[in-house]
Amino acid sequence: MTIHYAIIVAGGTGSRMGSDVPKQFMPLNGLPVMMHTLLAFQRSKCTPHLVLVLHPSMQEQWRLLCNTHHFQVQHSLVAGGESRFESVRNGLEAIRLMGGAASGALIAVHDAVRPLINPDLIDLLYAEAARTGNAALAVPSSNSVRIEQLDGSGTFSYPREKVHLMQTPQTFRATDLFQAYERPEDSTCTDDASVVEKTGIPITLVPGDACNIKITFPEDLLIAERLLTIRRSGSSPDYAQ
Amino acid sequence: MTIHYAIIVAGGTGSRMGSDVPKQFMPLNGLPVMMHTLLAFQRSKCTPHLVLVLHPSMQEQWRLLCNTHHFQVQHSLVAGGESRFESVRNGLEAIRLMGGAASGALIAVHDAVRPLINPDLIDLLYAEAARTGNAALAVPSSNSVRIEQLDGSGTFSYPREKVHLMQTPQTFRATDLFQAYERPEDSTCTDDASVVEKTGIPITLVPGDACNIKITFPEDLLIAERLLTIRRSGSSPDYAQ
Repeated sequence: MTIHYAIIVAGGTGSRMGSDVPKQFMPLNGLPVMMHTLLAFQRSKCTPHLVLVLHPSMQEQWRLLCNTHHFQVQHSLVAGGESRFESVRNGLEAIRLMGGAASGALIAVHDAVRPLINPDLIDLLYAEAARTGNAALAVPSSNSVRIEQLDGSGTFSYPREKVHLMQTPQTFRATDLFQAYERPEDSTCTDDASVVEKTGIPITLVPGDACNIKITFPEDLLIAERLLTIRRSGSSPDYAQ
Repeated sequence: MTIHYAIIVAGGTGSRMGSDVPKQFMPLNGLPVMMHTLLAFQRSKCTPHLVLVLHPSMQEQWRLLCNTHHFQVQHSLVAGGESRFESVRNGLEAIRLMGGAASGALIAVHDAVRPLINPDLIDLLYAEAARTGNAALAVPSSNSVRIEQLDGSGTFSYPREKVHLMQTPQTFRATDLFQAYERPEDSTCTDDASVVEKTGIPITLVPGDACNIKITFPEDLLIAERLLTIRRSGSSPDYAQ
């Protein structure tokens, strides 16, 4: 039987939100952003083991929030590092200790600040990663795109349908992800697909969801509230209560 | 004295909105989307001559809406074409008839379905186009990016800070824009910067605004309402009433 893991990466300390409360703790319809995220994974059919990577300075606050909200979703808490790369590597070390480096295990990596992820997509990514080795959510750009030359010599237009904006989860065979994270950190890699790609493995893209937004700026939180309201008024059961 | 023009392109008929009402006519805080757009241009210090390019099948409905809302913003109405390229070219022909092909004139092209454009940005783009020949709004991607090879041989990771998602307005010296639109239509060009670039002119990018969203899907309209509410609660005067 395949064992499923998910590393939820909560790295930042919220400076761009202009707030002392880190964005992953900010309330979204009354519940901290990160709780929505963990609940979505709990609700997926694969029900992965959850590893939450959180900066040590924020762990006490998180525990208090869990108490306040009687938050029952089981997860292992792991110390975040100085960079996203270090944080994911710390999460992988925790999974290794759980025996998760075994062949056949699958690991999803997800941003804590993407609380609107649809549980069905989480399952779809595990299934696709089981089939092809990995699967990463992506949406095409709805805007026209210009790309800067890597040598800085100006920009050029690029067909927007060939430009994929990456989301998370990005899900991998455990063995591939462990191998990729044994290499030294490369600061040009801003997601796990690019880290794994450096080992020569091609990446499978799965169509993402425009609603799976990343909470980066204060207005994103208001937009997320709006999207949650739309979802609630639809036919899907509300899993955030 | 520099003469300023703006072509407001309202091409689509709203099929992606799942609605019979085209998206540019849908109400945003009680006022059709496109009226917000025209009001933003009227409020800019450059107060450009406005050319609204609208599909013939929608012009009667637009006139009725203008009557209903006592909409007073002066604009020339021009028939939209089968493609965005044709629509802009029709707008340019109208400007030519107004004498706008004269050297020194500046023309902004803007999507009708970007109603939240900040009037100060409209002015900034005219100023930058006067200086460098053109100016196009763009925001860097906040997501990691993968790019498909043009030959279809897979995707590769690209540094997201070098990937610019284009917005409008895109503003040009009239002479350059007229020259660019004399060439045959190239369906790979999805914005005016790419049309002008084909004539060998380099494009100047100006930092855009995350709030300057394009109304494409129904949820965008709800998001736009949220963003308008935030703007109203701020210190800026409300120009949409």
